[in-house]
Amino acid sequence: MDQNLSSITRPRGFLAAGGTCGIKASGKPDLALIACERPARLAAVFTTNAVVGAPVLVGREHVRGGRGRAFVVNSGCSNVATGQRGLDDARTMAAAAAEAIGCRPTEVLPASTGVIGHHLPIDRIVRGVAELGPKLAAGPRSDADAAHAILTTDLTPKAARRCVTIDDQVVEIGGIAKGSGMIAPNMATMLAFLTTDADLSAPMLRRALKRAVNADASFNRISVDSDTSTSDTVAILASGLAGHQPIREPDSRFDDFTAGLTALCQDLAYQVIRDGEGAEHVIRVVVEHAGSEADALRAARAVADSPLVKTAVHGGDPNWGRIAMAVGKSGAQVNPARMSIRIGPTPVYREGRPTAFDEAEAAGHMAEPEVRLTVDLGLGAGRCEFLGCDLSRQYIAINADYTT
Amino acid sequence: MDQNLSSITRPRGFLAAGGTCGIKASGKPDLALIACERPARLAAVFTTNAVVGAPVLVGREHVRGGRGRAFVVNSGCSNVATGQRGLDDARTMAAAAAEAIGCRPTEVLPASTGVIGHHLPIDRIVRGVAELGPKLAAGPRSDADAAHAILTTDLTPKAARRCVTIDDQVVEIGGIAKGSGMIAPNMATMLAFLTTDADLSAPMLRRALKRAVNADASFNRISVDSDTSTSDTVAILASGLAGHQPIREPDSRFDDFTAGLTALCQDLAYQVIRDGEGAEHVIRVVVEHAGSEADALRAARAVADSPLVKTAVHGGDPNWGRIAMAVGKSGAQVNPARMSIRIGPTPVYREGRPTAFDEAEAAGHMAEPEVRLTVDLGLGAGRCEFLGCDLSRQYIAINADYTT
Repeated sequence: MDQNLSSITRPRGFLAAGGTCGIKASGKPDLALIACERPARLAAVFTTNAVVGAPVLVGREHVRGGRGRAFVVNSGCSNVATGQRGLDDARTMAAAAAEAIGCRPTEVLPASTGVIGHHLPIDRIVRGVAELGPKLAAGPRSDADAAHAILTTDLTPKAARRCVTIDDQVVEIGGIAKGSGMIAPNMATMLAFLTTDADLSAPMLRRALKRAVNADASFNRISVDSDTSTSDTVAILASGLAGHQPIREPDSRFDDFTAGLTALCQDLAYQVIRDGEGAEHVIRVVVEHAGSEADALRAARAVADSPLVKTAVHGGDPNWGRIAMAVGKSGAQVNPARMSIRIGPTPVYREGRPTAFDEAEAAGHMAEPEVRLTVDLGLGAGRCEFLGCDLSRQYIAINADYTT
Repeated sequence: MDQNLSSITRPRGFLAAGGTCGIKASGKPDLALIACERPARLAAVFTTNAVVGAPVLVGREHVRGGRGRAFVVNSGCSNVATGQRGLDDARTMAAAAAEAIGCRPTEVLPASTGVIGHHLPIDRIVRGVAELGPKLAAGPRSDADAAHAILTTDLTPKAARRCVTIDDQVVEIGGIAKGSGMIAPNMATMLAFLTTDADLSAPMLRRALKRAVNADASFNRISVDSDTSTSDTVAILASGLAGHQPIREPDSRFDDFTAGLTALCQDLAYQVIRDGEGAEHVIRVVVEHAGSEADALRAARAVADSPLVKTAVHGGDPNWGRIAMAVGKSGAQVNPARMSIRIGPTPVYREGRPTAFDEAEAAGHMAEPEVRLTVDLGLGAGRCEFLGCDLSRQYIAINADYTT
């Protein structure tokens, strides 16, 4: 993992820095700056929550033209539900980064994560960003600082990298992410910042990112606790310095790049789930032969989010009736007489009938770090892989016991 | 409460009995029979889960004509996901009750609650029903036995009664319910069996029941853990013996009856939530001025089901940002600049801006047995009251620690 912490400066043209500007009472790192040395392509996807943070509103504006230079990110305060002042603060933060780098404020994507309903200590952030500017050129070490500075109470920093070959040129893709933590306490937020030296037009970069986040077991196919943050952001900057011919249409080179980007997103998404609040097991829900792709997603998400499935996995109990229940409530088309369920490799329910199975074998699989639950709906070609995690006392402790 | 345990035989014409036929390993009561001395009107609503128990499939058939005589109910085994044999068993159970009472099998509504994916011990049930037959006339004492026999691991039996006056005649309405418990372990299921001596046509009875279960804070407006059982059933028998003129249209007498039935359902629903698995607080979510009734329900349900809201209430933490988040993810129309939030009587967020508030006062309200969270969306006339409960370590213990 450690070698990956310098992932976002592997692609040619990127610099990064992280530090402490005094937002968190703990004194932990809380500010990161990731920049491209030259004008780059920018794409991003944001939370679907109707209540969003000020940085998301500003980010949506700045990403529109498809060009950008930098991400500026703070942890410890999410700048959500903060009205006009919150919007002003998000713009000030972007402007401070623009000044440090030498670009326009609209070329900066700001992001914040932490407690909701509090104003940013914007003076500290502006000072902090100015101090990060000179550190940008310090190399991989600063890169690891950035990976740490975006965390809230994640237990581990999250970083990943992939290479793909396009026109015989090695293209690097790197990324860092934060997942489900809380501050004092706070809601989980997922942020991911990706970099690449691939050369894509803005529409192609956007298309690749959308495909990557919606792939099986990627960012849009994971859930720690079914609560959608008001700040979720996955953004990518592409420097175009890899030296291949620009990708301007969905050709096979686009597919190659997208495959690499997808693998990177899946890697980071897995790290987020593995570090989910209180999680001891990753739950991989596989829905096969659903009536449609949408139905496969509905059913898989319902299983992964069901408190009764999550507690059954936590307890190592192969109580497959809860899986059947969750599929049934999902809204997906279901014909119980065609449905089958497996726990790990073990069939427990076959086309509408309970099946005698080795309970010790199934319980043994549920004791593993990753538990695979497969639902075959027997209806069509829809398929989805979705990642969740178990529900533990530690989740309650993290989210109930430490009061603001 | 105890005096209410004889609620279902208060309405004229009803008899009830409960006993033990040997389904539960614990040896606790597991079989109940509730019957009307004469042909009665029957109405019922069932789970919306696409995977349903065999008794629900049989019940849907039997309720179709609007006439019935009895409920036969077992706990300890839900007869869900049991294929054709399960259907045969549910019909056999209804036939046994019909024989004990002297009516047609199609006049009996069967119901089962307990572990999924196991076959009913149908021979024991048939014997048990035959033994309950002679006990039916024993009066209120047997009535309390029925209230106990339908429980799984509910901590308390649940019963309620109401009176309304129609045409100067006192009309009685009684009911018993079971809520969220588990066996070995098992999913929560909500069952409620209601009786009345009101005289309504079958369509009017159906209409009254639908209205009652969909009222604020009634059966369709509560959630312990967002998981929808495969067995949920709320059914009512009306003997027509109260002596008033039959209600055949939605007149003011219909409204009076429906108001009484609604209050009864709300009473039982409250008891179910108060006894929710691991619950220490009832959470009453009130959404006001939503763009529509449907939006009010969506937003209220999302708040009540949010693990982060539930743990905040459990921890007594007035972290209102989680409420805003849950409303935002609900799919309801939201304009943050118009939204306001109150914890108990205390405003914490006003039209898009955080509001200075007395945290001790808000935390004090959250320490009460019932916590009221109010969201004013500032958009229209939609309103909903929805009941949930907090999420505790005890919930995890109930659902994870005891393995099958």
